[in-house]
Amino acid sequence: MATSSAKPTPLLKDELDIVIPTIRNLDFLEMWRPFFEQYHLIIVQDGDPSRTIRVPDGFDYELFNRNDINKILGPKASCISFKDSACRCFGYLVSKKKYIFTIDDDCFVAKDPSGKDINALEQHIKNLLTPSTPHFFNTLYDPYREGADFVRGYPFSLREGVPTAVSHGLWLNIPDYDAPTQLVKPRERNTRYVDAVMTVPKGTLFPMCGMNLAFDRELIGPAMYFGLMGDGQPIGRYDDMWAGWCVKVICDHLGLGVKTGLPYIWHSKASNPFVNLKKEYNGIFWQERAIPFFQSLAIPKDCTTVQKCYRALADQVKTKLGEVDPYFIKLADAMVTWIEAWDEVNYPGGKPAKQSNGTSKSK
Amino acid sequence: MATSSAKPTPLLKDELDIVIPTIRNLDFLEMWRPFFEQYHLIIVQDGDPSRTIRVPDGFDYELFNRNDINKILGPKASCISFKDSACRCFGYLVSKKKYIFTIDDDCFVAKDPSGKDINALEQHIKNLLTPSTPHFFNTLYDPYREGADFVRGYPFSLREGVPTAVSHGLWLNIPDYDAPTQLVKPRERNTRYVDAVMTVPKGTLFPMCGMNLAFDRELIGPAMYFGLMGDGQPIGRYDDMWAGWCVKVICDHLGLGVKTGLPYIWHSKASNPFVNLKKEYNGIFWQERAIPFFQSLAIPKDCTTVQKCYRALADQVKTKLGEVDPYFIKLADAMVTWIEAWDEVNYPGGKPAKQSNGTSKSK
Repeated sequence: MATSSAKPTPLLKDELDIVIPTIRNLDFLEMWRPFFEQYHLIIVQDGDPSRTIRVPDGFDYELFNRNDINKILGPKASCISFKDSACRCFGYLVSKKKYIFTIDDDCFVAKDPSGKDINALEQHIKNLLTPSTPHFFNTLYDPYREGADFVRGYPFSLREGVPTAVSHGLWLNIPDYDAPTQLVKPRERNTRYVDAVMTVPKGTLFPMCGMNLAFDRELIGPAMYFGLMGDGQPIGRYDDMWAGWCVKVICDHLGLGVKTGLPYIWHSKASNPFVNLKKEYNGIFWQERAIPFFQSLAIPKDCTTVQKCYRALADQVKTKLGEVDPYFIKLADAMVTWIEAWDEVNYPGGKPAKQSNGTSKSK
Repeated sequence: MATSSAKPTPLLKDELDIVIPTIRNLDFLEMWRPFFEQYHLIIVQDGDPSRTIRVPDGFDYELFNRNDINKILGPKASCISFKDSACRCFGYLVSKKKYIFTIDDDCFVAKDPSGKDINALEQHIKNLLTPSTPHFFNTLYDPYREGADFVRGYPFSLREGVPTAVSHGLWLNIPDYDAPTQLVKPRERNTRYVDAVMTVPKGTLFPMCGMNLAFDRELIGPAMYFGLMGDGQPIGRYDDMWAGWCVKVICDHLGLGVKTGLPYIWHSKASNPFVNLKKEYNGIFWQERAIPFFQSLAIPKDCTTVQKCYRALADQVKTKLGEVDPYFIKLADAMVTWIEAWDEVNYPGGKPAKQSNGTSKSK
């Protein structure tokens, strides 16, 4: 670890919520019990709200179904996707904590090469509590990690780093492939444990997967909108990608860092590639236009908050990507609705946020 | 590995030279024998030319001392550093091969986590023969590697990648730290084997270490100039860094890739931090000005060859960094001399290069 940085607190209590989108019973939590039990869970139930989701005993959670979302956001609930895991961002909006960890319900505890269970959450917290280095590449990876540092030739003026807004974790077993790659390589499994965390450099976009993701809600929360996907929309499975592109350009603009690498989770099963192809189809075309748009995007200098950046981004999405497909005009409007909803729930009349209205259950 | 790419040839004969700068007997080659013996070595003897360098039997090599360099380059020999490992770039200039691997004489064969000897050269060749992906970050690292691919959300139009010009390898045991870090952390050893190769994204500079480095001489050779260091110069230990900054901006301009990560070598001993501090002292200040210079550099569009790019770069070094210190004016002139020498040796009268005049020894 670089000598300039303090040792990070291994774990935070009362500062982090775990957000889980789901349509089924959460038996997968049993395996996570030693790591998650001390935290508050925000469960966003997708699909039929009349269905009962079973949560193992002993967890402290709130569960929000579609009726709750509609009740809390009113007409602004239109910005929250239905029948798509993009609905998870509702959990980010109603959380009152500084940090969010979000995980899919088909992700289990992975083992490191020594056979030890990986505490994914602890690694995410380490990543978030140490700075990022987006302005120059460090060849020995995260310089703030124990046993590592900045290498010869790394400018000293850049060694303080910048605050870390996002920690993007990876997946052993089933890799996060698109439908075409799933179809072509049905048997491919990720067995390579790469013992590294690194900063995605400034000016570089990356594919952000929502399966195993943590972020600093105070620094970047309002940009973590997962878009309009699923029911009634011409696209799916681009929710986290969209959020990742938006988040990255705003982090670059505001001088915040994005890390990727450790921790790994064990991704248990591949989703259906045929279903996925249908969801991804439009996105495969549209991203070829969206990526150059994000790569050349200029956020005005006077945008000094995430909200201002996000509104400026929504404007440009409407103008420039609206030409690609009318979907982007609808999406741009939803981005504005999302920001309004975020501010309404989090700063009602400028006061601290009120208590949420989901189904609560404390241990 | 991505399905679009062919499996790389594991090893190339007659297409690669190994360049070793040294002032001592090359006993370290014994350990590398199984991996190096089939290749031609270019040994650049630094310091006193009357000293005899012992090379273990069985290696095919040429050795160039200062007298040879002066004889071959004439007055243009002034661009080749003396009493500094920067002299190694003379070896790149006189090579007739497509690929160069350069290694320091205190670097030994490392072992992978399974205890197997690492064939560093083979990994470098794999890196160079598969494309790079500088335009978008792939979270599962090198997508062309076996068991890996592009992840969901990676634009399909970018999956062909770009030709790889540079493969930058890393070091176990003694990390490549600057003098201040060496002084502060004298006991730090790199024990972390990170099983990854990745592309340094476009627009991002990195600290290129010359200890364990391979490159495609045809693609980027003329930019691999290690500057004016050592004897008679106000700076040392920035030779590879300088080359790295120049190479990276030219690769970015020409659409070429730079990879870093595997392979590891075992770096046996730390150099003296007090001596290093004296060498690095000016560089520590100057790089704070040089980095912003390289980050904001614009190479004119009509520079379509490495030589043209390098001359344009030398112009700007003279104009803009010349203000920082007169050393950069001298360096800019040496950069032009280097390009002239490169073209003179490699394309005398536009014809194929003539045989070199070093001391030759074939097995």
